[in-house]
Amino acid sequence: MGLSDIEPGIRNEDGIAAVIGVLRQRFGEKLQTGEAIRAQHAHTATYIPGQLPDAVVFPGSADEVKLIVRACADHRVPVIPFGTGSSLEGQVNAPSGGISIDMSRMDKVLEVNSEDLDCTVEPGVTREQLNTYLRDTGLFFPIDPGANASIGGMTSTRASGTNAVRYGTMRDNVIAVTAVTASGEEIRTARRARKSSAGYDLTRLFVGAEGTLGVITSVTLKLQGIPQAISGGVCPFPSVEAACNAVIMTIQMGIPVARIELLDALQMKACNAYSKLDNPESPSLFLEFHGTEAGVAEQAALFAEIATECGGGEFLWTTNPEQRSELWKARHNAYWASLQLRPGAKGISTDVCVPISRLAECVVQTQEDIAANGLIAPIVGHAGDGNFHVLILLDPDVSAEVAAAEDFVERLNARALAMDGTCTGEHGIGQGKRPYLALEMGEGVSMMRQIKQALDPMNIMNPGKLFSFES
Amino acid sequence: MGLSDIEPGIRNEDGIAAVIGVLRQRFGEKLQTGEAIRAQHAHTATYIPGQLPDAVVFPGSADEVKLIVRACADHRVPVIPFGTGSSLEGQVNAPSGGISIDMSRMDKVLEVNSEDLDCTVEPGVTREQLNTYLRDTGLFFPIDPGANASIGGMTSTRASGTNAVRYGTMRDNVIAVTAVTASGEEIRTARRARKSSAGYDLTRLFVGAEGTLGVITSVTLKLQGIPQAISGGVCPFPSVEAACNAVIMTIQMGIPVARIELLDALQMKACNAYSKLDNPESPSLFLEFHGTEAGVAEQAALFAEIATECGGGEFLWTTNPEQRSELWKARHNAYWASLQLRPGAKGISTDVCVPISRLAECVVQTQEDIAANGLIAPIVGHAGDGNFHVLILLDPDVSAEVAAAEDFVERLNARALAMDGTCTGEHGIGQGKRPYLALEMGEGVSMMRQIKQALDPMNIMNPGKLFSFES
Repeated sequence: MGLSDIEPGIRNEDGIAAVIGVLRQRFGEKLQTGEAIRAQHAHTATYIPGQLPDAVVFPGSADEVKLIVRACADHRVPVIPFGTGSSLEGQVNAPSGGISIDMSRMDKVLEVNSEDLDCTVEPGVTREQLNTYLRDTGLFFPIDPGANASIGGMTSTRASGTNAVRYGTMRDNVIAVTAVTASGEEIRTARRARKSSAGYDLTRLFVGAEGTLGVITSVTLKLQGIPQAISGGVCPFPSVEAACNAVIMTIQMGIPVARIELLDALQMKACNAYSKLDNPESPSLFLEFHGTEAGVAEQAALFAEIATECGGGEFLWTTNPEQRSELWKARHNAYWASLQLRPGAKGISTDVCVPISRLAECVVQTQEDIAANGLIAPIVGHAGDGNFHVLILLDPDVSAEVAAAEDFVERLNARALAMDGTCTGEHGIGQGKRPYLALEMGEGVSMMRQIKQALDPMNIMNPGKLFSFES
Repeated sequence: MGLSDIEPGIRNEDGIAAVIGVLRQRFGEKLQTGEAIRAQHAHTATYIPGQLPDAVVFPGSADEVKLIVRACADHRVPVIPFGTGSSLEGQVNAPSGGISIDMSRMDKVLEVNSEDLDCTVEPGVTREQLNTYLRDTGLFFPIDPGANASIGGMTSTRASGTNAVRYGTMRDNVIAVTAVTASGEEIRTARRARKSSAGYDLTRLFVGAEGTLGVITSVTLKLQGIPQAISGGVCPFPSVEAACNAVIMTIQMGIPVARIELLDALQMKACNAYSKLDNPESPSLFLEFHGTEAGVAEQAALFAEIATECGGGEFLWTTNPEQRSELWKARHNAYWASLQLRPGAKGISTDVCVPISRLAECVVQTQEDIAANGLIAPIVGHAGDGNFHVLILLDPDVSAEVAAAEDFVERLNARALAMDGTCTGEHGIGQGKRPYLALEMGEGVSMMRQIKQALDPMNIMNPGKLFSFES
């Protein structure tokens, strides 16, 4: 399958009309069918063409979600949960039409248990909202995908970001969810205890299910204490390999880096141009350390030794917040800087993740591939996890460019799989990566389909995501 | 259901005879049907009566496991995976008879990727064997349930132990498994990358499934670097509450304790008697810190301040390995010391886990309950996780004692659930906790059953565990 031919499902026109009738009576103005709002709720964040839902409904409670799901179940109409629409693989598209459930009005922080370092939020709360809410508690929620995504959406795509190397991904930070299943029942996947051996791990089943098993109605999250001290810095390296070797040594020595990000030379060049910086235009690592004053200084000193040993340049670091922001400016602006490498172009972001021992090899081969095919494609990596993104800049109206990008993505994913890696470290499968899920998981996909079939026999929960429609 | 009336299933006599015939031809002496060996493979570690399998088979490879499972599937005969038999809730019992698959001959460490801090082992490798194997690599595997359990068994019960507070449980430390499913296919649940968003989290589905979804044939594990320095110590407190408050403050301040164990006054008294020690006979915390020389000293000093603030006595600690073992002696011998409180008695171990803010309250109420009912029952807790074990010492032949213990366990589990806790932090459900799973998970159990039904429609994989036989 190519990037541009997202397979459509079959529309149940009568059912859709009936559900819209039922929901309009119940929800009034909280049900919208105008094209503009439906288009906003179809996928627009990348190259994947939007497929509009037939209506968008804005529930305010789990009971309203139940009512919506039951109406859809009665009429066999697709249910597409929607957070902020920042997913990258078509997760919010409606290939068979149906009802988009916009969770943005379920945006309450339900409880914060600061003694237990946890909180429970409605799914529409965004990560920035949550951290603003927590400001006076001494706690924070660490997971930071690029966008200000909703907690429900982050849970559903098993999101991570720059500090997963220290704090883990959503898999590690969700304690429990409540969710409305395909039959319209609400279940809770776990209690608030920190660990449990009570049966199948339903929490982890919902984390990453991309809305295909139910609609998440609340999420209980681990929180972290705000560190006493934070230090951050940047270090240039003569090659991607040298930088990756420094990452491997850092991880192996058990230095608890909070962030360790790789930018390749092209990305550094783009950042210098965009943010008027004069960083060396060579592969660079951006680091952050969390701990006590003494601890972060010790960590930075240890990393500086490693960097020198790996042939790196000077490691500039600081605990001063303003100076730290300045040192990190290139990393913070990387995405916008990339787009300026080719103004007007659209970006396709890849998302492979490999064992870190293979990271250098994977990035180097990928850069060679980019060069050999004349692509404009800077690289940013969550190096400590072995995860990196190539942003391919292309004109989606030029079919040769699209074909070249598709072929490149196919080779990149095959390369990562051959290195025992995954096609997606954090973006999820959605529509765009379905063919790669089968390549990656083999017979495991059959097991996933069996679970889906058992829990959603009518295939109304976000159909056409993870799996194609036919068996 | 009481502790003593484990519900039996229906035996498929013809199928069992047929499978034994088929397997004997293929496995020869590696199939055993003598009563002594069958009894060894039925559950014996606690009060739960043993239910013998009809035969025990010792496969040497995943292909042999496939062959066994296919033979059992052909004849609808139960398959009971067996590691070392150290589980505590009847997980290896054979209530409908069937074939016990003893994994002890699949005991090879298949690969160690030291650069990636991971390894892949066959399921019969025990945790001590693995750490012995790793001795020269600078790495170790941290999860330490009391017994020298097998990695396959630890995966299947989602085991943890004393240092889960720092390194997590099996949930957090298994990267992938291969498993033979109920239809005799082998699947692999994930690649070796540190994170992935590729579909449903099949790895976490097998972690804790207690052999009800398939037979694990290999496990890929995270490893940790052996810390540069380890410090350990012990601190007495005037009350359980004071000790728990110190735990809460320690966790809240983000001190990365490797271990923080609570022993109540009765347990300390038992340990003094058993190991001829003169520790204060009051509730005590045993701690261990992992890090750099400076880091572990800093952590110990911070904890000492907290202990003082909470009314604790002197915190004795050291980085000297022999002195550390001496300080920790009471904790290490706690189980054997407990049994000496009532020589000849059998122990029933409970396993509740609550949010740590509720730990003091839960332990205090439980001690009051113990006293009010005249039980002999010391308490040891993985306090940093909110998990504690009450070891009830009883004479299993005195029905009044058994009934009193059953009632106590019921009240304890209800107390933990009312505090948003779980009936099992690390031992699993097996047969013994099935009624509590339903109380804890509510409608979630229906979802678990749907998954079980979809993946094992004939209910041949370890039947009668997690769920009772009838729907």
